[in-house]
Amino acid sequence: MKDGGAAAKGRGKTAGLRMGILPDLLAYHLRCAHVAVFQHFNRTLGVHGISGPQFGTLLLIEANPGVSQSSIAEALRFDRSTLVQIVDRLEDRGLVKREPSAQDRRSHALRLTEDGAALLDELKALSDEHEGIVAETLNEDERKSLLALLERLHTPGPPRPEGRAG
Amino acid sequence: MKDGGAAAKGRGKTAGLRMGILPDLLAYHLRCAHVAVFQHFNRTLGVHGISGPQFGTLLLIEANPGVSQSSIAEALRFDRSTLVQIVDRLEDRGLVKREPSAQDRRSHALRLTEDGAALLDELKALSDEHEGIVAETLNEDERKSLLALLERLHTPGPPRPEGRAG
Repeated sequence: MKDGGAAAKGRGKTAGLRMGILPDLLAYHLRCAHVAVFQHFNRTLGVHGISGPQFGTLLLIEANPGVSQSSIAEALRFDRSTLVQIVDRLEDRGLVKREPSAQDRRSHALRLTEDGAALLDELKALSDEHEGIVAETLNEDERKSLLALLERLHTPGPPRPEGRAG
Repeated sequence: MKDGGAAAKGRGKTAGLRMGILPDLLAYHLRCAHVAVFQHFNRTLGVHGISGPQFGTLLLIEANPGVSQSSIAEALRFDRSTLVQIVDRLEDRGLVKREPSAQDRRSHALRLTEDGAALLDELKALSDEHEGIVAETLNEDERKSLLALLERLHTPGPPRPEGRAG
């Protein structure tokens, strides 16, 4: 059992309770970290009424002007109806426009409006600050390790060996 | 930029799209990993109709028989009304009982019922399996590093230096 000092300190008891097996569960720490980071996200980028999925969608439209809804849904692993709701909301606020697609008459090409591009610049600056604050207990190497380890949890790896229990 | 091979492979493009700054954001990888792990949680422990917060609550009651609702809410950082709903649901299913507290007439002492203890044993076995599968791309050292890094994101550290931008 090799933990940093800060990690070891919180181990075992919280609010005077025995924590049982919780401190050994990845699911527990992932949920707690997710809650802590997105509470802070909501206090920073959230003041503009922008959620995490909306921010991700704006970033992808900026990086891929004319992108289709289905490509964004696939890249961010949202189901299609969730993405349509996100784009509806961004379009209602005048941040994104749907144009007819040159390639496919049944789909739309998404672009940022001028207002959308301006707000996204502000959001990116807030995100820089937010990312710095939520990870301020980590040095740059630790932050990069954490990113790479998290990426391996959500990026499909090689096929699982057959015959695994369960 | 030092990333593992698996991490680097997924970098830059997903579903043929340029990912912009998303792959550099902790919030992005945390959300994706959270979605991946809890989708798997729901396919395993979820088949018993048990959510993450319910599982955490059962584990704390087991480790602290007679615990109060407010202590659990504090330890798991739920607001009180959320915890009351969780305990209501567990009580309705006959997994938990509320007894009068010997210390404080206004609060309840929570205990597992026999059914609750039996189900929790099954859930813990499923959780072991679930934890092994979601982290199967990590070796044991990497898994422990990830736990410790996540813990530092959600465990309050020393006070922040004054005068931070923002």
